[in-house]
Amino acid sequence: MSNQDIIRVKNFIHGEWVEETGVEYTPLYNPSTGAVIGEVPMTSEKTSLAAVDSAHGAYASWRKLSVSKRVGFLFDMRQAMVNKEEQLAVSIALDQAKHISEARGEVRRVIEIIEAACSIPTLIQGETLDGIAKNINGRVVKQALGVFGGVAPFNFPALVFGWFIPYAIGVGNTFIYKPSTQSPLFMQEMGTIFQEIGLPKGVVNIVHGNRSIPGTWYENDKISGVCLVGSTNTAKKMAEACGRGGKRSMLLGGAKNFLVAMEDVNWDVFIDNFIHSCYGSAGQRCLAGSVVAAVPEIYDELVERVIEASKKVSVGDAMDPDVYMGPVISAKAKENIENYIEIGIEQGSTLALDGRNPEMPEKNKDGYFVGPTVFTDVTPCRRIAQEEIFGPVAAIMKIKDLDDVLQLIRQQKFGNGACIFTQNQYYTEKFIAEADVGMVGVNVGVCAPHPYLPFGGIKDSHLGTDKVQGKDGIDFFTQNKVATIRYAPPAGVNEEGERTDSDKSVRSCVAQ
Amino acid sequence: MSNQDIIRVKNFIHGEWVEETGVEYTPLYNPSTGAVIGEVPMTSEKTSLAAVDSAHGAYASWRKLSVSKRVGFLFDMRQAMVNKEEQLAVSIALDQAKHISEARGEVRRVIEIIEAACSIPTLIQGETLDGIAKNINGRVVKQALGVFGGVAPFNFPALVFGWFIPYAIGVGNTFIYKPSTQSPLFMQEMGTIFQEIGLPKGVVNIVHGNRSIPGTWYENDKISGVCLVGSTNTAKKMAEACGRGGKRSMLLGGAKNFLVAMEDVNWDVFIDNFIHSCYGSAGQRCLAGSVVAAVPEIYDELVERVIEASKKVSVGDAMDPDVYMGPVISAKAKENIENYIEIGIEQGSTLALDGRNPEMPEKNKDGYFVGPTVFTDVTPCRRIAQEEIFGPVAAIMKIKDLDDVLQLIRQQKFGNGACIFTQNQYYTEKFIAEADVGMVGVNVGVCAPHPYLPFGGIKDSHLGTDKVQGKDGIDFFTQNKVATIRYAPPAGVNEEGERTDSDKSVRSCVAQ
Amino acid sequence: MSNQDIIRVKNFIHGEWVEETGVEYTPLYNPSTGAVIGEVPMTSEKTSLAAVDSAHGAYASWRKLSVSKRVGFLFDMRQAMVNKEEQLAVSIALDQAKHISEARGEVRRVIEIIEAACSIPTLIQGETLDGIAKNINGRVVKQALGVFGGVAPFNFPALVFGWFIPYAIGVGNTFIYKPSTQSPLFMQEMGTIFQEIGLPKGVVNIVHGNRSIPGTWYENDKISGVCLVGSTNTAKKMAEACGRGGKRSMLLGGAKNFLVAMEDVNWDVFIDNFIHSCYGSAGQRCLAGSVVAAVPEIYDELVERVIEASKKVSVGDAMDPDVYMGPVISAKAKENIENYIEIGIEQGSTLALDGRNPEMPEKNKDGYFVGPTVFTDVTPCRRIAQEEIFGPVAAIMKIKDLDDVLQLIRQQKFGNGACIFTQNQYYTEKFIAEADVGMVGVNVGVCAPHPYLPFGGIKDSHLGTDKVQGKDGIDFFTQNKVATIRYAPPAGVNEEGERTDSDKSVRSCVAQ
Amino acid sequence: MSNQDIIRVKNFIHGEWVEETGVEYTPLYNPSTGAVIGEVPMTSEKTSLAAVDSAHGAYASWRKLSVSKRVGFLFDMRQAMVNKEEQLAVSIALDQAKHISEARGEVRRVIEIIEAACSIPTLIQGETLDGIAKNINGRVVKQALGVFGGVAPFNFPALVFGWFIPYAIGVGNTFIYKPSTQSPLFMQEMGTIFQEIGLPKGVVNIVHGNRSIPGTWYENDKISGVCLVGSTNTAKKMAEACGRGGKRSMLLGGAKNFLVAMEDVNWDVFIDNFIHSCYGSAGQRCLAGSVVAAVPEIYDELVERVIEASKKVSVGDAMDPDVYMGPVISAKAKENIENYIEIGIEQGSTLALDGRNPEMPEKNKDGYFVGPTVFTDVTPCRRIAQEEIFGPVAAIMKIKDLDDVLQLIRQQKFGNGACIFTQNQYYTEKFIAEADVGMVGVNVGVCAPHPYLPFGGIKDSHLGTDKVQGKDGIDFFTQNKVATIRYAPPAGVNEEGERTDSDKSVRSCVAQ
Repeated sequence: MSNQDIIRVKNFIHGEWVEETGVEYTPLYNPSTGAVIGEVPMTSEKTSLAAVDSAHGAYASWRKLSVSKRVGFLFDMRQAMVNKEEQLAVSIALDQAKHISEARGEVRRVIEIIEAACSIPTLIQGETLDGIAKNINGRVVKQALGVFGGVAPFNFPALVFGWFIPYAIGVGNTFIYKPSTQSPLFMQEMGTIFQEIGLPKGVVNIVHGNRSIPGTWYENDKISGVCLVGSTNTAKKMAEACGRGGKRSMLLGGAKNFLVAMEDVNWDVFIDNFIHSCYGSAGQRCLAGSVVAAVPEIYDELVERVIEASKKVSVGDAMDPDVYMGPVISAKAKENIENYIEIGIEQGSTLALDGRNPEMPEKNKDGYFVGPTVFTDVTPCRRIAQEEIFGPVAAIMKIKDLDDVLQLIRQQKFGNGACIFTQNQYYTEKFIAEADVGMVGVNVGVCAPHPYLPFGGIKDSHLGTDKVQGKDGIDFFTQNKVATIRYAPPAGVNEEGERTDSDKSVRSCVAQ
Repeated sequence: MSNQDIIRVKNFIHGEWVEETGVEYTPLYNPSTGAVIGEVPMTSEKTSLAAVDSAHGAYASWRKLSVSKRVGFLFDMRQAMVNKEEQLAVSIALDQAKHISEARGEVRRVIEIIEAACSIPTLIQGETLDGIAKNINGRVVKQALGVFGGVAPFNFPALVFGWFIPYAIGVGNTFIYKPSTQSPLFMQEMGTIFQEIGLPKGVVNIVHGNRSIPGTWYENDKISGVCLVGSTNTAKKMAEACGRGGKRSMLLGGAKNFLVAMEDVNWDVFIDNFIHSCYGSAGQRCLAGSVVAAVPEIYDELVERVIEASKKVSVGDAMDPDVYMGPVISAKAKENIENYIEIGIEQGSTLALDGRNPEMPEKNKDGYFVGPTVFTDVTPCRRIAQEEIFGPVAAIMKIKDLDDVLQLIRQQKFGNGACIFTQNQYYTEKFIAEADVGMVGVNVGVCAPHPYLPFGGIKDSHLGTDKVQGKDGIDFFTQNKVATIRYAPPAGVNEEGERTDSDKSVRSCVAQ
Repeated sequence: MSNQDIIRVKNFIHGEWVEETGVEYTPLYNPSTGAVIGEVPMTSEKTSLAAVDSAHGAYASWRKLSVSKRVGFLFDMRQAMVNKEEQLAVSIALDQAKHISEARGEVRRVIEIIEAACSIPTLIQGETLDGIAKNINGRVVKQALGVFGGVAPFNFPALVFGWFIPYAIGVGNTFIYKPSTQSPLFMQEMGTIFQEIGLPKGVVNIVHGNRSIPGTWYENDKISGVCLVGSTNTAKKMAEACGRGGKRSMLLGGAKNFLVAMEDVNWDVFIDNFIHSCYGSAGQRCLAGSVVAAVPEIYDELVERVIEASKKVSVGDAMDPDVYMGPVISAKAKENIENYIEIGIEQGSTLALDGRNPEMPEKNKDGYFVGPTVFTDVTPCRRIAQEEIFGPVAAIMKIKDLDDVLQLIRQQKFGNGACIFTQNQYYTEKFIAEADVGMVGVNVGVCAPHPYLPFGGIKDSHLGTDKVQGKDGIDFFTQNKVATIRYAPPAGVNEEGERTDSDKSVRSCVAQ
Repeated sequence: MSNQDIIRVKNFIHGEWVEETGVEYTPLYNPSTGAVIGEVPMTSEKTSLAAVDSAHGAYASWRKLSVSKRVGFLFDMRQAMVNKEEQLAVSIALDQAKHISEARGEVRRVIEIIEAACSIPTLIQGETLDGIAKNINGRVVKQALGVFGGVAPFNFPALVFGWFIPYAIGVGNTFIYKPSTQSPLFMQEMGTIFQEIGLPKGVVNIVHGNRSIPGTWYENDKISGVCLVGSTNTAKKMAEACGRGGKRSMLLGGAKNFLVAMEDVNWDVFIDNFIHSCYGSAGQRCLAGSVVAAVPEIYDELVERVIEASKKVSVGDAMDPDVYMGPVISAKAKENIENYIEIGIEQGSTLALDGRNPEMPEKNKDGYFVGPTVFTDVTPCRRIAQEEIFGPVAAIMKIKDLDDVLQLIRQQKFGNGACIFTQNQYYTEKFIAEADVGMVGVNVGVCAPHPYLPFGGIKDSHLGTDKVQGKDGIDFFTQNKVATIRYAPPAGVNEEGERTDSDKSVRSCVAQ
């Protein structure tokens, strides 16, 4: 790739693509090859504040549009994305190196999320309680709050856009979005779509850079709230800053998700779902199933089947149709995963399948690849069973029974997802009731809720009270404003609505 | 129009256009000219039953599609209608002779109704109440019921389609639709759209004919419910038959709607809305404001302003862009309206503006025209103040005060809509609380609720408990099925989910 | 019992106990002994109309009370019932001859239903959709309708009161209640409670008699709706009359409920629940499990276990603490059940346990007793498998698999309840999704939903669209009135709320 | 008061009253007299942690009780409070020195809040979306989270209890409550009620002390969330600490509420409400109306009427029935208010009524009294118009028009309540839509929402996204856990629920 092919990523400020000048740019890589394919500006605080001003200015008129009109833009956005579906997927497969078939799936999912957001006129309805006392009515209206800022992680450049922006703007707010500097290309496409559908200037602004961007938000009177999908560490730091600044926040953090196999497991269902859950997105997702817990009577068979299936998982270029799993996001990510594999070995677990440094064709030899890796005989307190590795590494442990694994899940600092594989309804209901997480799956490996239902965890996986998607999506981006309204008769009219000077006789057709 | 131009209206049975043979056909007129433009089959019971079979057969698989897939057809239907918007409007302006600008408005409204129906995955969500007792959960699911039949009136061929079919099929039922024989052309377009979007065969069937069509439904085990927009008389007859046959029914009937002007009326708002309400659709709609009630201090001015504005309303061909109001639906309708004008005169009201037999250009001289007609000095019990005229005839009466008119509304047999014109919040809230109708308007002339909110009246205007549109639309076409689920541990497992033979010690990383 | 001990049942009209004169009285029996214990007036139409007038008059002010105040009466009613719990139970055990332990259960359940009705201020909240267009708001308010009439069956004198009256009056209607002439005593207690808590006169009226009582409602302008728990035959007749009269109706009819046992049935759970379901209330309830369907591999064992357990069921006086099952309601009911047993034999089923004419102690020798009765080898189309016997008679049939029994349930004319006994979640979910009834149970024998969830069937078991209890309870007794409200600035004020003559400069403390 | 009459305030730990030893005690005053009436322990961290352990231990079984049983305790708590209504009111009038008539009102309000919390079984219902894909269901359940800690302010010792505890425990959490050290007596009564109704030990713990108590919560794994009603400064500090520790928080802070009088103000309504709003609780409440904004044509009359009415407000002992307004909470509070009066004068506003150092009878001469105080000619940016004084001080300013005051409200850092006085519906709706606060009042002075509707502000008045009361109350104390459930047929059964080896013929009674 020659120098002139380098993509110079731009900010999208007040409806226009703007090239940031006078700042450092960070290189953008294709993780499948290690090649530099672009550069991303470390945007200045001044530009960041210009984005805030744009969003704040746009809010005044945007919030006054009828909800039908605002949702009309979502209908159009959806159609525009349908029309560009492949182009959007390729943008993800390129910089984030999500395998193209998964990238297509992510774009499809976002289209469904926007369809769900088209329910906003239904979801945003408030409540009435008339006659709470004589001539007093109560009314609850769900109102937008102002400008929100959002920070995205590298691993789901489309999905996180879908969680934040359609809901935030559909209910009447405006938005500033900071994509990951490692996967900015998807939003470069979306900004153009915003222009095509005529979204008013300033309703969505896109700014690239580091933590100095959200740094301009926390104490800023023009900002109403902040959202994030990122690490727990970042989430806590942002929560602290938001608390200090008095901003509402919804911050999705890290995870460590159990896949629990009971004695009546359906093997086909389990293995299919395990592969998808553990190796999909090369393990870089907050719902990856990275701890496999099996009861004693099936433990040995499970280990054997998992290793056999894992060996068949093909690794390679994200654009190669014959490949199942692409690279991880960066050289540093690769190193971090390999480091965890060392730790696993050191703490005494058995490395049953070692995915480090898989063989690659010439063009991918500098890509950031880690193959399927399986540890067995893992015990609960080891770091590979407790910490988020964010790579294709499975830790298999033996559990005593359902209660045993429920306790392990409860002791975890994370609380994102947990899945059980069983056909028994007691196990199912017990698990749903007691797994101390935000999302539960039964015979599924990735327990991502349907776009019409809320998505999010608890404990260290989610700071804040509202989740994304569905009714929760409305709650975070609105307040429930309550009006208490007393109305009294005008002068000369009594409590019955009669003029005090008028004839009181009733005219009745029935009585005639 | 030569004989070969006559449109031979077809039934739409199991996804195909089928010409009915061996039965009588009734002529279809263009009310703007009185010309015969087509013919409509009086379909046989045999064909009607074939439609039932088609719908019943289709139900088995249609209901099992995921709600997202069913709603996907609504997204496609909406887009197809957007693409054919003008063609659909012309079909209404032709046989129903709604003025083309109003016909466009009706089509636009139906598109919005379908957009609202795209919220079905949100609206159809049931409820859970877990842990209602130890190991017992409760669950409510909103489920489709089977096949519904619907009968439409002539006056809103598109709107009534929108009220019934998107909701009925979106939640999982299948449908048989009988359009009015006076305005069948809109559905001839829609059937083709159903084919274009690949709606499964039998999900919607269209059958033309008389009351023998619903006659095949009432005692039919394959039919779950019946809906109607029509006269109160028809509604009661159908309610009786449905009761006898054990079918649920939602039957919208006639109306007589008050427009109430208070002393602080904003004249511009009132007159604009009066004209639209009384003369729109040539007065042929269930929300037409046909009784104008004014308090004494503004009564004289109101009469003067109403007459002045009414005189300016142009009458003519439904396709003429310079015209405001088209013809009424038929010669018989015209005669009926003229008969009411006679009754008004006979019972002593003042005919302040006589719209009978307006002058028309040559091509429209056989059209069914009645011009704006205004009675003044009407008293409440006169027939023109009590009965539905379904034509452009206003009855103006003087009221004493708000309480007076609220009593008149309460004494009415109908209970569809009522509107007040005021700027005072006490009047507003009192009217909303006490007007004994299903729909209230404040400073609007046609109080049709927004597509996301329910539409319907009470008393003789609405038989049944559910209305159309929004959450009500879901309720009629589904049942709330309730499951009570007990789950008990499998053998060898105690109430805590522990194997009774396993080691009870807890493994805690915290405790290490 | 001497003549002077005969209870002369009174009507409760406008807050007073009134003895009906000049009419026939029908005897009231103690079904445990056959003794006459009272007499019940066949109230005149004149008195019935007086009750209507009372309720109609009371409505005007009752509906204007704040919802908190109306619900305050429910809190008080609940407490008064708690205080009289045993007395209320005895009243049921006496005339309806429900066994005293079950009678206590019924009273307890009604108290819970009233607790659920205390949620009315939450449930009755309407919706708002502000800004549906510029300066236009939409609002939905759930409003009472007027006077409702309700007719109760003999078998649940307390429960049916709980389904109708707390919801009907809590939302603002007034009520006329006709208890069964076979079990009027419970409401004699309740009327006194209404007086004690100071319920305004006319809010609830109690009238005893035959179908001429509801006969005064159907065409009566003062009545808004009718509800019933009774036979399907009565329900259809009332539906027809309500349709003719334009009244909304909610009419619960008959039932025939399957208990389905799968191959993984938990025997203890099944047998316990079968006994309770089939023999509780002596089989006289709409959720009695009267068809037992078992898959082939457990059929023989199930037959054996059912007969063994049925033989242990003790029959006797409703007040005897050692008895499980009391008598049926009347000599005629007994005869009817015995007739069905004959039919069962004639159509070829095996009478494996014959409960006719069980031996009784002297004092109960004239009571109306039928003991547990079990038919085996029943095939689906036999009358004892299709018709409601309303007595302690079980019909056991062999089914092929889950799909087989789902088809049988679908073909039934009734659609009230159905229960499955299994531990498998596929069977559970399939059954919940596809059993063509209104209420489903899993590992429970009587699938009565929790008081916070709706109760009711479909098909011939329920005429109308709303069920009782929970959100459904609100829907039937209210309408969703929709207001569309336009507000425009007063003269001299522009769209921004500014006086057109005032200085436009903004005063900002921030800018200082 | 002799030494032995000093109340030694106790902690309530694990269901027992425990006297804290070895720590400092702070004196408790009667603000009406300045006398020391008790002493309050500055509880040690060790005891605070014991309370956490108690609550955490109790959670395990409390959360597993059915919701009906938990709400049963609320029914009992309500009844116990009704029985002790006056005793509870006196406890508030004593240490908080809220005037006894207001104290009674506060207790009454809390009883209503508990009644509203009795709707929890309705409010806590989750959602279902069955069939989201073939054989996959989605379910949302609202689940408790664990242990919550709450900190109360001095001014509403009962109300804040009502906001936090009934909802927190009703949904299944357990609670640690730190009352204000200035008004601990109400909770001393409540703890005894908890014992009387048999509330399980540890479900509610009461701990007195300073900020070291919540200091034990933020980083504590046993704590799930924190709530506060207090100053904005405290709220932000706690938000920061909660963010750092990963706890959810709901923190109500300070306020500065406008009362806006338009040209059509109803004077009687305005003055009554002004007096209640500004001088109720001696101005020590977050909904006190402390800025009065009037349009020019009524400004002068308003000033005159406000001063005249303010002069009539009697000040004195909280237990004196002839008094309207009691003292402020402490000598320091008095000093702070007097300091603000100085600031008001210094910044140029007119001190039209000076309430400093009102004359008092001998027994109250050391009480902390400030009388009604009115500033006129206040301009928006002055400190007395911007900062929370928390005393009976009104600042009157002239505004240009509605838009002008809406801008002033928008510029405020606080966003709690705002009230308008008008009869015009445009002003009403504009104000509801655009006043940038959480609670709006129309013709009411204290816009506290009805107990069934949410209560809370925005901006610096409320940190977090959920409010208290109603549906919001549920949201903060639960998470929306989402389950995605796939069920597949057991071996030997096909997708239709048929055994693959069974005869496929359908048995149909209809077909026979």
